[in-house]
Amino acid sequence: MKLIPVIMSGGVGSRLWPVSRETHPKPFMPLPDGQNLIHKTFVRATALDDVVEVLTVTNRELFFKTEDEYQRAAKVRGPQSFILEPFGRNTAAAVAAAALQLESVHGADAQMLVLAADHLIADQIAFAQAVKKAQVLAAEGWLVTFGIQPEYPETGFGYIEADKASTLQGGLKVQRFVEKPDLATARNYVAAGNYYWNSGMFCFRVGTVLDELQAYSPDVLEAVRATLSNSRLSEGEAHRCLRLDAESFALVPDISIDYALMERSAKVVTVPCDIGWSDIGSWNAVSELTAADENGNRCVGEVLAHQACNNYVQSNGRLTALVGVEDLIVVDTSDAILIAHKNSAQDVKHIVAQLKKSGHSAHLIHQVVHRPWGAYTTLEEGERFKIKRIVVKPGASLSLQMHHHRSEHWIVVSGMARVVNDERELMLDTNESTFIRAGHKHRLENPGVIDLVLIEVQSGDYLGEDDIVRFEDIYGRADC
Amino acid sequence: MKLIPVIMSGGVGSRLWPVSRETHPKPFMPLPDGQNLIHKTFVRATALDDVVEVLTVTNRELFFKTEDEYQRAAKVRGPQSFILEPFGRNTAAAVAAAALQLESVHGADAQMLVLAADHLIADQIAFAQAVKKAQVLAAEGWLVTFGIQPEYPETGFGYIEADKASTLQGGLKVQRFVEKPDLATARNYVAAGNYYWNSGMFCFRVGTVLDELQAYSPDVLEAVRATLSNSRLSEGEAHRCLRLDAESFALVPDISIDYALMERSAKVVTVPCDIGWSDIGSWNAVSELTAADENGNRCVGEVLAHQACNNYVQSNGRLTALVGVEDLIVVDTSDAILIAHKNSAQDVKHIVAQLKKSGHSAHLIHQVVHRPWGAYTTLEEGERFKIKRIVVKPGASLSLQMHHHRSEHWIVVSGMARVVNDERELMLDTNESTFIRAGHKHRLENPGVIDLVLIEVQSGDYLGEDDIVRFEDIYGRADC
Repeated sequence: MKLIPVIMSGGVGSRLWPVSRETHPKPFMPLPDGQNLIHKTFVRATALDDVVEVLTVTNRELFFKTEDEYQRAAKVRGPQSFILEPFGRNTAAAVAAAALQLESVHGADAQMLVLAADHLIADQIAFAQAVKKAQVLAAEGWLVTFGIQPEYPETGFGYIEADKASTLQGGLKVQRFVEKPDLATARNYVAAGNYYWNSGMFCFRVGTVLDELQAYSPDVLEAVRATLSNSRLSEGEAHRCLRLDAESFALVPDISIDYALMERSAKVVTVPCDIGWSDIGSWNAVSELTAADENGNRCVGEVLAHQACNNYVQSNGRLTALVGVEDLIVVDTSDAILIAHKNSAQDVKHIVAQLKKSGHSAHLIHQVVHRPWGAYTTLEEGERFKIKRIVVKPGASLSLQMHHHRSEHWIVVSGMARVVNDERELMLDTNESTFIRAGHKHRLENPGVIDLVLIEVQSGDYLGEDDIVRFEDIYGRADC
Repeated sequence: MKLIPVIMSGGVGSRLWPVSRETHPKPFMPLPDGQNLIHKTFVRATALDDVVEVLTVTNRELFFKTEDEYQRAAKVRGPQSFILEPFGRNTAAAVAAAALQLESVHGADAQMLVLAADHLIADQIAFAQAVKKAQVLAAEGWLVTFGIQPEYPETGFGYIEADKASTLQGGLKVQRFVEKPDLATARNYVAAGNYYWNSGMFCFRVGTVLDELQAYSPDVLEAVRATLSNSRLSEGEAHRCLRLDAESFALVPDISIDYALMERSAKVVTVPCDIGWSDIGSWNAVSELTAADENGNRCVGEVLAHQACNNYVQSNGRLTALVGVEDLIVVDTSDAILIAHKNSAQDVKHIVAQLKKSGHSAHLIHQVVHRPWGAYTTLEEGERFKIKRIVVKPGASLSLQMHHHRSEHWIVVSGMARVVNDERELMLDTNESTFIRAGHKHRLENPGVIDLVLIEVQSGDYLGEDDIVRFEDIYGRADC
């Protein structure tokens, strides 16, 4: 029985700003143990039995970053494939695209296990057992949801009402899906005993989900089918990559898989489970991952406290001092700081909305920018200068390029660089430097087997990223 | 009648951490209007009538910085003099040293006006009028204090009890000095009408204060006299500079001028005044200098707020987001953030004490370090590299030096540099760079008439500031 975990890597996680940003969203946010959620999700998925490939549906801007994470997670690169969206189009479109592609590769009997890239599951063994149960039900033609045993009357989740009389092989028939309830209703749900948190994870046969989509949301299925026929598929050594055509994808209805299918189909069951699930939906959930000290403060990074209690602090290099404060969330990043009351953790998204509205870039980017050849961090910008720390992966190369207005000074702090500077080619060893005059064609390459780290100091009258003329690029794309 | 404002630039202002630091203390802290307290104090002092010179008593580490401020404040450099302390020894020692020096230069009839470098006085006209009154009294042999009309029952100041029946030429005889009271006592003082805040400013004849010190604290006077006879006096074009000998200064009793003299002498009067005085004693006082928005938030720098009120935020380049919080003080600097409740503003000093105890440098230095030749800012430190922005003043020069373990790469971003690199001497124009190999003697100089700004990238295995061998230094001191 072939199983294909489908990792859905969608939303931005604006309630986790300023760490989560549009170009570095929630799945990539490092947790206190140093790992991020997409890394954990990938490891969790590949550890299951019967997995023949892992399919990831994500934004195309996150492709290189996601691949880097998977490479870090897996010692041997297993069969991976990607569906790259030009923009988010909700979950029905993503599930349909995955199902159609998997049908053509693995056939209608293959099973999809739909997972969110940004959830945490603490109990891998219980999770694997739940998946086994789901697979049995999926093989019989059910659309299987995973219902989380509620621990408390949470008002931030949807609930699944199950029919406890209808047991079938570890599952329960679903009576209905209910929206996020108010507190009183949530309490009733928990007391009733047959309500579960809707985790947004699913398991089904490829054939079943396509048939049911055809029956209940044929418009979605048709529009996705049209998109696929216009999209570019590239097949590499170990992975398949489908880049969805933007024009036709824009015509797919923007609807969730819950609305499009789950709430309509009669074939829906749930596998109740207790797997240590969390959707890491706010800073309060993140704070739970760090142990509290004797004053209830949970601190990641260097913190000094004086008569302060029950605070969560996450800092990055800077010292944070708390004096006489309680119940605060403090999250410090290189360009923005959040200070929120714990009771207002959900409202952080309003800050992101304000930033977006005002055209501020702090919701968008971090100072670290990932590129196919590595990454760069803008360390400092000032009048007439900009300083970057550039990491080039072994064997990687930046495009051959030229700037009209800026000179660049490169200083190798570790590794070895091969540099094309105008007509010359030279090798730079650690501690050596070179100077690229404005108007000179140049290329930077790492010929070695360890990371090349260099400091670039740009100087000149104009230092915008758009002062670049590219001549050759091995990645066939714009880079920096 | 000669008047010499004596600016006492002493304490650290640890309640204003993280902006105020040991090497960049409270008088140098920029206020929202861009000026700092010592600048304001100097301008206020020089604007008075009869001023023949301004004498500043400060720590020798703050000499260059103080001079820079005065130069910025005064279009024409007036007669300035300095007494430089090797370490703080309380106010009696400072006043005695100033009085002894002024006696030898201006005679016993000259009048001293003792001012704190870190107080704010909003009403310059009322201040000048109060000084005039004080001068009349001082000429008659009184030790004059300035009693601030209390606005509310402050518990953080000492009070002066005056005899309202004893009016003499705009002054009142002082009955006693009282320590910081509790709230109930403070209320009684304000209600009584003859209690004033002790501002710590004084006016007296040089001869009077020396006679009274001889009478009430002869040990202080003798020890300071001995220190002066061991100290080095240098007289320049426009200023006199007395560097106190550390060994003998350490023998001076550590006592305030209030204890040593004011509370003992029978010749003490007070001039009641209403001059808009504030000792800027905590972040609450600083926050008052910025207007509140409609939610009561007072913000310096870029701040976004959602359901947040009555907060004070002072940031420096980074965006601060407040969500659902109130009555907080948030002060962000490049290496440390303070988050305090307004009611705990006085407790910030405990954080500084903790830092000191643990040997942390965040109480000590800022990233900007001032030197006689200019200043440098550490922009970034990482594995095997350190990046500084260096500003060299026109005509200034760093010492001829050498490093064993690090190479230095210099990139000129504005101005012109003259560089000695081993046996070569070269001129570097804007956008040009050079490379100083480890082990090579080198010197950096600004031959031009505008600031030289350069980026220095250090690379190597060891980047400590102590890897430096100095050969020549035009300032006769250790610099960097």
